[in-house]
Amino acid sequence: MNKLNRLIGILLGNIIFLIFALAADAQPKEETEIRQWLDQWAKAFRAHDLDAIMSMYAPDVVAYDVVPPLQYAGKEAYRKDYAQFLAQYDGPIEVEIRDLKIFAEDGMAFVYCLERLSGTLKNGQKSDVWVRYTGGFRKVNGKWLDIHDHVSVPADFDSGKAMLDLKP
Amino acid sequence: MNKLNRLIGILLGNIIFLIFALAADAQPKEETEIRQWLDQWAKAFRAHDLDAIMSMYAPDVVAYDVVPPLQYAGKEAYRKDYAQFLAQYDGPIEVEIRDLKIFAEDGMAFVYCLERLSGTLKNGQKSDVWVRYTGGFRKVNGKWLDIHDHVSVPADFDSGKAMLDLKP
Repeated sequence: MNKLNRLIGILLGNIIFLIFALAADAQPKEETEIRQWLDQWAKAFRAHDLDAIMSMYAPDVVAYDVVPPLQYAGKEAYRKDYAQFLAQYDGPIEVEIRDLKIFAEDGMAFVYCLERLSGTLKNGQKSDVWVRYTGGFRKVNGKWLDIHDHVSVPADFDSGKAMLDLKP
Repeated sequence: MNKLNRLIGILLGNIIFLIFALAADAQPKEETEIRQWLDQWAKAFRAHDLDAIMSMYAPDVVAYDVVPPLQYAGKEAYRKDYAQFLAQYDGPIEVEIRDLKIFAEDGMAFVYCLERLSGTLKNGQKSDVWVRYTGGFRKVNGKWLDIHDHVSVPADFDSGKAMLDLKP
């Protein structure tokens, strides 16, 4: 009987360990996948690969971009915005990500971070700007799709100026 | 035997119905709670009730506000930002919410919407501005807390101006 009790004890201990191990593992897996999404996006963005970028968005994405209007509703509207943005640059656009936080559950995630976008504009001028990024994601058929982007710089209400030269 | 089969069939049907009914109910409940959070926030914001506002935020909230700097890290920093913002207004600040979308899972949610903030400034001038809002939430001890705010207006890169007079 003592032997049986010990056996049950060990068995229960293992089951509890397994449950905790699986629970602990659940978060990092989703986080890793979202990190991969961000890496893939930065690569496609750097290379001006519009098709690759847009394949990462949901059809009904709503984006609040750093440029007007207030919102881009749907993938087609957002694609035009991306095309215009990319067309301003000559050659690669570098992306540096800082202070990234990822919150992920089973099929839903959101992230925020500061992003430094730098490159050479078509007129030869260098551009180097820090923006704030918040993104929302849903997993559809095993693939994470961006369903919401919010990209911005702060505004100075007194001067009416957009703060394009802030650094973290 | 036929009777038993029928009985099992009815029982299975009921169980499946119950599972779907529970699943269908899960989403609206979380959504309702987030809507209540937004209503409560708008009420506290309208009334300049800083303590009520801050009780709705997590201690480690990170906010990207419409005004500089790039980010406010932690509740104390964000509280000072709120205090400064509220102090600009004389009397109630009205909040109108448009195009609200809520994505909620068990203990996590994020929302986005357009917000119209209007009121009278201390200098007597009327202020009326549409901003974009994205918020992230976590449920802690049965209470939804805001863990991330992103509030902004678009920027015009050519003129360097913040677009404070856009309308949806």
